[in-house]
Amino acid sequence: MSRIAYVAGQYLPHRRAAVHIEDRGYQFADGVYEVIAVVAGKLVDEEPHIVRLKRSVGELRIPLPMGEAALKIVMREVIRRNGVDNGIVYLQVTRGAAPREHAFPKSVKPTLVVTAKRTKPPDPKYGRDGIAVITIPDIRWERCDIKSVALVANVLGKQQAREAGAYEAWQVDRDGMVTEGTSTNAWIVTMDGAVVTRAADNAILSGVTRLAVLDIIRAEGLQFSERPFTVTEALAAREAFLTSTTADLLSVVSIDGKPVANGKPGLLSEKLRSAYLAHTGMVV
Amino acid sequence: MSRIAYVAGQYLPHRRAAVHIEDRGYQFADGVYEVIAVVAGKLVDEEPHIVRLKRSVGELRIPLPMGEAALKIVMREVIRRNGVDNGIVYLQVTRGAAPREHAFPKSVKPTLVVTAKRTKPPDPKYGRDGIAVITIPDIRWERCDIKSVALVANVLGKQQAREAGAYEAWQVDRDGMVTEGTSTNAWIVTMDGAVVTRAADNAILSGVTRLAVLDIIRAEGLQFSERPFTVTEALAAREAFLTSTTADLLSVVSIDGKPVANGKPGLLSEKLRSAYLAHTGMVV
Repeated sequence: MSRIAYVAGQYLPHRRAAVHIEDRGYQFADGVYEVIAVVAGKLVDEEPHIVRLKRSVGELRIPLPMGEAALKIVMREVIRRNGVDNGIVYLQVTRGAAPREHAFPKSVKPTLVVTAKRTKPPDPKYGRDGIAVITIPDIRWERCDIKSVALVANVLGKQQAREAGAYEAWQVDRDGMVTEGTSTNAWIVTMDGAVVTRAADNAILSGVTRLAVLDIIRAEGLQFSERPFTVTEALAAREAFLTSTTADLLSVVSIDGKPVANGKPGLLSEKLRSAYLAHTGMVV
Repeated sequence: MSRIAYVAGQYLPHRRAAVHIEDRGYQFADGVYEVIAVVAGKLVDEEPHIVRLKRSVGELRIPLPMGEAALKIVMREVIRRNGVDNGIVYLQVTRGAAPREHAFPKSVKPTLVVTAKRTKPPDPKYGRDGIAVITIPDIRWERCDIKSVALVANVLGKQQAREAGAYEAWQVDRDGMVTEGTSTNAWIVTMDGAVVTRAADNAILSGVTRLAVLDIIRAEGLQFSERPFTVTEALAAREAFLTSTTADLLSVVSIDGKPVANGKPGLLSEKLRSAYLAHTGMVV
């Protein structure tokens, strides 16, 4: 089955799915995106993804290229045409193609691209053994709450993690506080059992998996606090973990080469991971 | 004459010049660019543009998709095919197209796009009467020395300027210092006649026009200092101006609606403007 992509009104073979060189997504990173998991043919947490998409385009004042109902139909059609049972949908909206000029063009039609592909869940060993993170300065712009495609700093950070043999890089702001990973949210469990993650301010993306895990935490009646934490606090924590659509929830067992607690996935992280996987419909 | 663009090895009609939806320039802003002026068929300051391009791709660890000599030939061919006597060449290099993943793909070929078009010089009234700027917080990332396509903050800033009836927005860092405009460098002339512009640190782009104007200043034996300045200092200055490849050198006669000096272009700015236009080969 050859892959099919939706590009600005057309379903095209993936290999020739293209956008104009003057698409503002290409020349200005003037666009936003979403990645939504598909489990057993169903979109996971579709609603909060759509809510966030609408917020992101709203902040950049890009009109949504089609109504929400139509968008949902396109996503399902792309899933169907690509035979995706388990995988992801990638959706990108840019301000559209126009002669290059920084300010918004007078008349321009936003570009919508939707792709879907089968993916495997994260390597089971990550779930079993946990993963390592490094810490790096957060050099990104001040509106990381917008899920924009201006991701070059995230790219450099993720690459630095890979070269250090780590799964992720936790970014640290000027005040010494962890903001988030380059494509994941960051969490700790303190010695007195409280789950801590940064509040969704302008420095982080309000992760959809983050929201789902917060819901689980609330439903379970666990102690939690939305506040920033330092690397030192994370290293002194009982547990640490990260969340994202594609990583699900993974225990962080070392930071900058130093173990978190005994260097093994914590009990609460494992419990939350199981609960989150159940929420998505994944068989644990 | 229909426009022609160079895209990854091919000369294509502009209207169907496209890049793959998984080009990392589109999905991650993982690329850089240059804009070079063409005056009377000649590339203005080609060498410093190439030097800066090499530095930008070097910082992102993107290999240059062809040798310097070949690149110069492509630029000339694009100029020729588009019949550009006076205008600009736009050149973009991205890491290339690969299945979406933040870290650098294992094997990927960088994408080179080169376009050229005829442009008019800035509206003569800007040269005659000067222009207005507003000031806004600098919310960009911390590596503005890299000429990356991650320009969404610049887009928002320029749009804010337009809506305020201004030509440009000067961005101000957390210390209250002007960094630069959204697509121009910022300058003042102090009451004792010293020309001041921020040193080329990580917060600004080392503008090629900025370098050319610094050369003129040196050649003329004028007093100058490369240091940051505040908005208050700019408002108390004798003159202010901005520089860029497409704006050339324009006097800034008001900041946030308040006049700089008597609200008219200053003598030194006008002198530097003439010298810069002569340097580019433009008839003044």
